[in-house]
Amino acid sequence: MSTQLHLAASSGVGNELGVLFLVLLAAKLGEELFRNLKQPTIVGEILAGVIIGPAIFGIVHPNHSVELFAELGVIFLLFWVGLETKLSDLREVGKESLAVGFSGVVIPIIAGITLGFALGKTSSSAVFLGASLVATSVGITSAVLIQLKKVDSTAGRTILGAAVVDDILAMVLVAVAASIAEEGSIHLGSALAVLAIAIGFVGFVALGGTRLLRSQPQLLSAPKFATSPLLPAVLLCLGLAALSAKIGLAAIIGAFLAGMIVAETREHHPITDEIAPLYAFFPPFFFAFIGLQLDLHTLAQPDTLLLLSIVTVIAVGTKLLGGWLGARSLGKHNAIFVGLGMIPRGEVGIIVAGIGKTLGVINHQLFAVVVGMSIITTLIVPPLLRRYADFIQ
Amino acid sequence: MSTQLHLAASSGVGNELGVLFLVLLAAKLGEELFRNLKQPTIVGEILAGVIIGPAIFGIVHPNHSVELFAELGVIFLLFWVGLETKLSDLREVGKESLAVGFSGVVIPIIAGITLGFALGKTSSSAVFLGASLVATSVGITSAVLIQLKKVDSTAGRTILGAAVVDDILAMVLVAVAASIAEEGSIHLGSALAVLAIAIGFVGFVALGGTRLLRSQPQLLSAPKFATSPLLPAVLLCLGLAALSAKIGLAAIIGAFLAGMIVAETREHHPITDEIAPLYAFFPPFFFAFIGLQLDLHTLAQPDTLLLLSIVTVIAVGTKLLGGWLGARSLGKHNAIFVGLGMIPRGEVGIIVAGIGKTLGVINHQLFAVVVGMSIITTLIVPPLLRRYADFIQ
Repeated sequence: MSTQLHLAASSGVGNELGVLFLVLLAAKLGEELFRNLKQPTIVGEILAGVIIGPAIFGIVHPNHSVELFAELGVIFLLFWVGLETKLSDLREVGKESLAVGFSGVVIPIIAGITLGFALGKTSSSAVFLGASLVATSVGITSAVLIQLKKVDSTAGRTILGAAVVDDILAMVLVAVAASIAEEGSIHLGSALAVLAIAIGFVGFVALGGTRLLRSQPQLLSAPKFATSPLLPAVLLCLGLAALSAKIGLAAIIGAFLAGMIVAETREHHPITDEIAPLYAFFPPFFFAFIGLQLDLHTLAQPDTLLLLSIVTVIAVGTKLLGGWLGARSLGKHNAIFVGLGMIPRGEVGIIVAGIGKTLGVINHQLFAVVVGMSIITTLIVPPLLRRYADFIQ
Repeated sequence: MSTQLHLAASSGVGNELGVLFLVLLAAKLGEELFRNLKQPTIVGEILAGVIIGPAIFGIVHPNHSVELFAELGVIFLLFWVGLETKLSDLREVGKESLAVGFSGVVIPIIAGITLGFALGKTSSSAVFLGASLVATSVGITSAVLIQLKKVDSTAGRTILGAAVVDDILAMVLVAVAASIAEEGSIHLGSALAVLAIAIGFVGFVALGGTRLLRSQPQLLSAPKFATSPLLPAVLLCLGLAALSAKIGLAAIIGAFLAGMIVAETREHHPITDEIAPLYAFFPPFFFAFIGLQLDLHTLAQPDTLLLLSIVTVIAVGTKLLGGWLGARSLGKHNAIFVGLGMIPRGEVGIIVAGIGKTLGVINHQLFAVVVGMSIITTLIVPPLLRRYADFIQ
């Protein structure tokens, strides 16, 4: 074992605990303040991250540990959403979800690539800009749906289904964009293979898992394995999240599927009560971490601000249009609600742009712009969804 | 933000989730197996770490993330123990705790330094060897006390109180040992300052905190701050743990004090039910991480094995003697139980030896020996305590 590990054990861990403490404290204070102001609480949590982060006071800088806790935060968030979702409910809105997912990918990618070329970027950069406009952060929308008690609505289910489709397509796009950036060409065969594996994984886990636990609910708490179903459920969540990330999908897709599988045994176990404390503990790190990543210094330049405005308008407009187009068969209000729900880019846009930055095709300015756009789209949607929630069922 | 962070976000996090999943799975399987065999479950969890770790299969190597989760594991463990402890109960056994703490420090340090000189080590090395024989891992004993429902017994409370005394003295010793290793001399003034700060912290937090929350239990769930007392309680735990680590004490001392403070409001809130899932989730990482650190390769040399046997016998004998001496006024059975309870070195011996390794005064062989001794003392105590539990009240 390395000596560094030990130094960390003796002194560094205290600092790390301090950072985790500060992030959690700030997020909870932000949440409470916004609850008292009758504003969306996650906005308070993200702004708390902005305030304690490098953008304003610089008390906390994004580091690996906070990032890991943020990742677990969005995992437990989507696991929670999965617990409130039944596969049969998703199937009912399958056609609409597919349509929303597709049009919500195609329109932003075309707009993003066009903008990239208009800015005089290389084709690699343009494709990456397009890809970072694509992926919806279902984490953000989910959190709002939970608070509005609309996970179970037609529009809510359509958004969740579309987010799965969206994520699969975004993953293929990132693979394609990375192969263009690295080798200057597209490997159509490998892109299709990636697509097939992703669809196979989601289909197999969703169908097989739910069927298995519906018929054998005692599997989660067989007398030989654990006195409570909590840890088997958490292990299923972590395991499917890790597997999902391993094959290139977002980890949250696996967590969502795990939640949906465990939900099949809901009548048999009071599992949500036991998950609730983990759901209370981890997600605040996720929201605050988004705020921690804001680079106000770069964004404060006039030309960057202009670019940010353009990118944000495109990001909002294309997803609203895509969601509305795909869901218009559900009626006007539902279609608008779905369109709004697909807008937040949250952490996903930041991650995609980060990969592009690593590959050298997204520069410092464009990266700050994508992070700014992700945060803005994430901040404006919760109030809009709340206002619109009364119009849908 | 660094590009590394983003690569981690896109691909590394999947691997990290996988590692956390494997560690948790192995620990829970070990626990279940040992429960079915009617053996102490934490032994199963530690052995699971040995099996998946570098010592046997090498599937998982100790890394920073697992270490952070292990640290949170022992923090939530001691927080849980604190929740079951009242300050007034500790005071009742204050004299015995002090005596056990003192004799349990003085006897091992003298034996350790003597052994160090007998082995021909430098005085710095000898002092570090002594210091790593000193600190009891109250985490291990606490876990057993919880399972045996003996936290509240006279012997249980004496062990907890002694562990606080033990940790304060061990911290001073490590500071002294480090100053000898680095500068070749002892700063008596700064050692006394460290001691004063530690005693002041523990006294102020324990007395002030419990008094405050006893008179104002609503502080933990004032309507303006949080709907449930869970997060305020967790924040108090993390905050005091971080502060405790910051001033050089073990983080777990802060967590234990936080639990004791929160316990004052126990009649007002069902707080333990809400902490229980966090207590189920984190501690398995702590136990498995101890096993992950075993270096079987180095220990398999004949002369290392001999040294390991000698160090282990000294480690067991001196703590048993020290505990028994300090607690003999509580009667024979209680005194033996307390002596047994002070034996496990767990993670604390490993950390102290690790600091010595970093400073260059503990070599590779001696480090492996201390880790081996820590694991052996940790594995033999739970069965002994269980056997002895019937004799005490």
